[in-house]
Amino acid sequence: MAVMEISVIPLGTSSTSVSPFVADCVKVLEEEGLKYEVTPMGTQVEGNLEALFEVARKMHEAPFQRGALRVVTTLKIDDRRDKPLSLEGKRTAVLEKLTQRRG
Amino acid sequence: MAVMEISVIPLGTSSTSVSPFVADCVKVLEEEGLKYEVTPMGTQVEGNLEALFEVARKMHEAPFQRGALRVVTTLKIDDRRDKPLSLEGKRTAVLEKLTQRRG
Amino acid sequence: MAVMEISVIPLGTSSTSVSPFVADCVKVLEEEGLKYEVTPMGTQVEGNLEALFEVARKMHEAPFQRGALRVVTTLKIDDRRDKPLSLEGKRTAVLEKLTQRRG
Amino acid sequence: MAVMEISVIPLGTSSTSVSPFVADCVKVLEEEGLKYEVTPMGTQVEGNLEALFEVARKMHEAPFQRGALRVVTTLKIDDRRDKPLSLEGKRTAVLEKLTQRRG
Repeated sequence: MAVMEISVIPLGTSSTSVSPFVADCVKVLEEEGLKYEVTPMGTQVEGNLEALFEVARKMHEAPFQRGALRVVTTLKIDDRRDKPLSLEGKRTAVLEKLTQRRG
Repeated sequence: MAVMEISVIPLGTSSTSVSPFVADCVKVLEEEGLKYEVTPMGTQVEGNLEALFEVARKMHEAPFQRGALRVVTTLKIDDRRDKPLSLEGKRTAVLEKLTQRRG
Repeated sequence: MAVMEISVIPLGTSSTSVSPFVADCVKVLEEEGLKYEVTPMGTQVEGNLEALFEVARKMHEAPFQRGALRVVTTLKIDDRRDKPLSLEGKRTAVLEKLTQRRG
Repeated sequence: MAVMEISVIPLGTSSTSVSPFVADCVKVLEEEGLKYEVTPMGTQVEGNLEALFEVARKMHEAPFQRGALRVVTTLKIDDRRDKPLSLEGKRTAVLEKLTQRRG
């Protein structure tokens, strides 16, 4: 299991709003049945590597269906093989240590 | 108001775990009084541009205090001047359109 | 044809130097026969989308072969369908306009 | 000395071409007197941390001068304190090891 963050941005669409394009991408992701979270700056997904690359490929295609002529897709994959990785596990690890720092 | 995502990663630390370093960075952010969210893949912050760049500079420095000798900091700033931008507004815009798609 | 930038970083490797890992990744890329450039901050490649995703998947795997237990891979794909895109074309477009600005 | 890669992208500009905006940003950088390279996927700069953050702030502003209403700026800073870091040094380290792999 790895964790991916992906952001798909259309260029030259005349509108400064990109949320309709982002919603299309998330819809594609939802249909794959992977666990994910929509965050303000990108969508985060957990799954095996093959599934992550495959869904990234599909999400990248979505804005072209809505008429975009240029798309910039950025993705970051965090892949750890000495212990299981998950969206929830990553967040919890930071928040627990943050609580200690505050203590 | 702009929105920033920031990820600060130490290299060559011998441990595959980076959450202690990330918690330090979030602690620095917390002390600045900016609105933020810890996500599994990075920390997201809203604020004016000057404040964002300043806090990014401070967060980048944190791992060196804990002994890191090399740090790679990635940040993305989304700055929109035709309407107000916020963490909550960005997420809501996507989720509303996603609900329509599902409908 | 699209253009990709990719950066593959091992975490927890005890050495602050990552160039041996990067060289492995570039070697993998070289064997695919795609046009590429090594830049100080990442490797840039041109090719069709399928080839780019496939080589990214292979490059991501390389550091694990050298013993890394955690790898963070970041990639950005710029895909333009209203005109051909290439590494050389992108650079030239900027440099020509820069020459005009210098006047 | 640290090394930064920066990419400044305007959204909603109606044209799929962004090179005029990128050229403006590079012009701003040029005026700062820092060592830099234009690559197909972003501009890479070397300098001390303060100078890098300062120039990033200025480059981010450039597209708004040309009428953009939304700008997404991505930057990555690689900061190594156990030995000097430079654009040329980073590239050379990879290419030397790549030559060995080919050997």
